[in-house]
Amino acid sequence: MNMPSQVHIVEVGTRDGIQAEKQFVELDQKLRMLELIVAAGVRRIEATSFVSPRHVPQMADAAEVLAGMERPPGVEIEALVPNMRGMERALECQLDRVVLFVAASEGFNLKNLRAGREKMLDAAREAAKEAHGAGMKIRGGVVTAFGCPYEGRVPLEAVERIAGDYADMGCDEVGLADTVGMTNPVAVRRMAEHIRAKFPEIRFTLHFHNTRGVGLANVLAGLEAGVDTFDTSIGGLGGCPFAPRATGNISTEDTVNMLHEMGAETGINLGKLLEAVSYAESVFGRQLPGQLLHAGLPEWGAPAA
Amino acid sequence: MNMPSQVHIVEVGTRDGIQAEKQFVELDQKLRMLELIVAAGVRRIEATSFVSPRHVPQMADAAEVLAGMERPPGVEIEALVPNMRGMERALECQLDRVVLFVAASEGFNLKNLRAGREKMLDAAREAAKEAHGAGMKIRGGVVTAFGCPYEGRVPLEAVERIAGDYADMGCDEVGLADTVGMTNPVAVRRMAEHIRAKFPEIRFTLHFHNTRGVGLANVLAGLEAGVDTFDTSIGGLGGCPFAPRATGNISTEDTVNMLHEMGAETGINLGKLLEAVSYAESVFGRQLPGQLLHAGLPEWGAPAA
Repeated sequence: MNMPSQVHIVEVGTRDGIQAEKQFVELDQKLRMLELIVAAGVRRIEATSFVSPRHVPQMADAAEVLAGMERPPGVEIEALVPNMRGMERALECQLDRVVLFVAASEGFNLKNLRAGREKMLDAAREAAKEAHGAGMKIRGGVVTAFGCPYEGRVPLEAVERIAGDYADMGCDEVGLADTVGMTNPVAVRRMAEHIRAKFPEIRFTLHFHNTRGVGLANVLAGLEAGVDTFDTSIGGLGGCPFAPRATGNISTEDTVNMLHEMGAETGINLGKLLEAVSYAESVFGRQLPGQLLHAGLPEWGAPAA
Repeated sequence: MNMPSQVHIVEVGTRDGIQAEKQFVELDQKLRMLELIVAAGVRRIEATSFVSPRHVPQMADAAEVLAGMERPPGVEIEALVPNMRGMERALECQLDRVVLFVAASEGFNLKNLRAGREKMLDAAREAAKEAHGAGMKIRGGVVTAFGCPYEGRVPLEAVERIAGDYADMGCDEVGLADTVGMTNPVAVRRMAEHIRAKFPEIRFTLHFHNTRGVGLANVLAGLEAGVDTFDTSIGGLGGCPFAPRATGNISTEDTVNMLHEMGAETGINLGKLLEAVSYAESVFGRQLPGQLLHAGLPEWGAPAA
């Protein structure tokens, strides 16, 4: 099977994972989750978001999270930034990368992000300038890249256009998100191959929700198209406060287990990662969707290379 | 993506799906499940099993299930047969196909199936003769084809040898089972490509459990290797009475949804299939692992061809 041998995991559990949770996760709980995630060897973490604390109270302590979390050398800390107001807050923090976002479908921009595509892109451009000035790297996020709950199918060209805008802004990375979990492996492969060929200088990352159980099959399709970076969330925590019916992100532990079993390296210690998942379950007091914690590590130990 | 455009689903919900359930499913409940499955357009059903009623009481009414179920033209009804005693019971029923089985790993044969591989193969040979005499088709099942809870990895050659024995017995189909959900897409692809090349005259089918969330990714790998027939279970019901920690089979509805979204045809009406899943949930009084019933059908209707 033709796929990358080294795969990068971007842990989004304390951002996308918990932003729709009604239970407020206390600062010390967020920091403990992050500490365990770092201890497991995760090297990229989208730790928090500078969205409006009024709209997403769960993220109100973004600055405190970034100030309090451990950041050993080699760990890249990222945060979501929706607009200039968020960017101003982000600039006061120690951040390696900001993640901007625009939806590929106009319905999602207007209904859920409260501004049309062009306004969203203008805001992203302004934020990108500030981020570059502060020496931060930028990932441009394409929301609803694989389907929109209002408009259904999203044309390749809509995604391509936004990717081009991000390239012009100086983003080294563009993230394609299946925001509500609508896509399938054929569509993923088609999109990933198309867009990687158009922008060979940009790293494309993929962000899946496991709404209908297809999450890891979509990862496989992405790998086969050459994508080597995926957003995942410990325990499969997740959902979107603006996207009805979206269920959890693909779980970090199930994704990493599949990758290791397939012979790919992630640098992550699965046993230690399960400690983070176990802690997250204790915070929410329920079993989370990720399956590895309860199924147990595979019985044969070494990767099935 | 290179894959079959028509895919066959073998529904195993009333067999593998419920055999490990402690709650006895009454005959009329089994028949109602089967009625709804047939109504959804499923064309192959492994309806029951002629295992020892003492060991698996859930299957004690195998003959009554086969006598009572609807069987419109074009629907193939199959049953699992472990030995000659089971075969004798099967011969008294109206069956299109029997499913024999042997484990690829000797540890599983000895510990869970109570006989070594050679004895199991002798029994299969004897049963195959009877089945042919009665005009029944035969699927040869290879248990633990992708890994054994006792022995770990299973060599390709062990599976190949049993497939060869099945070919000699006149089986037109051989089913490769990941009995406890240990495998991964790379291993599936390698096995499926290897074994299909060795026995081009035999149809190979795949049987996955979703123990660690990799079930549909394994289906994708199988499709890419050219496999067009998969065992699935409504609601993701499942487990194995002899295999500790094995969780549910891959769910019929999530599998069919992925296939339809990828543009493959199954002949199954997903809306009607969800009625069968909903009924199964009412029988067991709990939410089953399959996700489509609760996530809802994809918002865009037509397949993403």
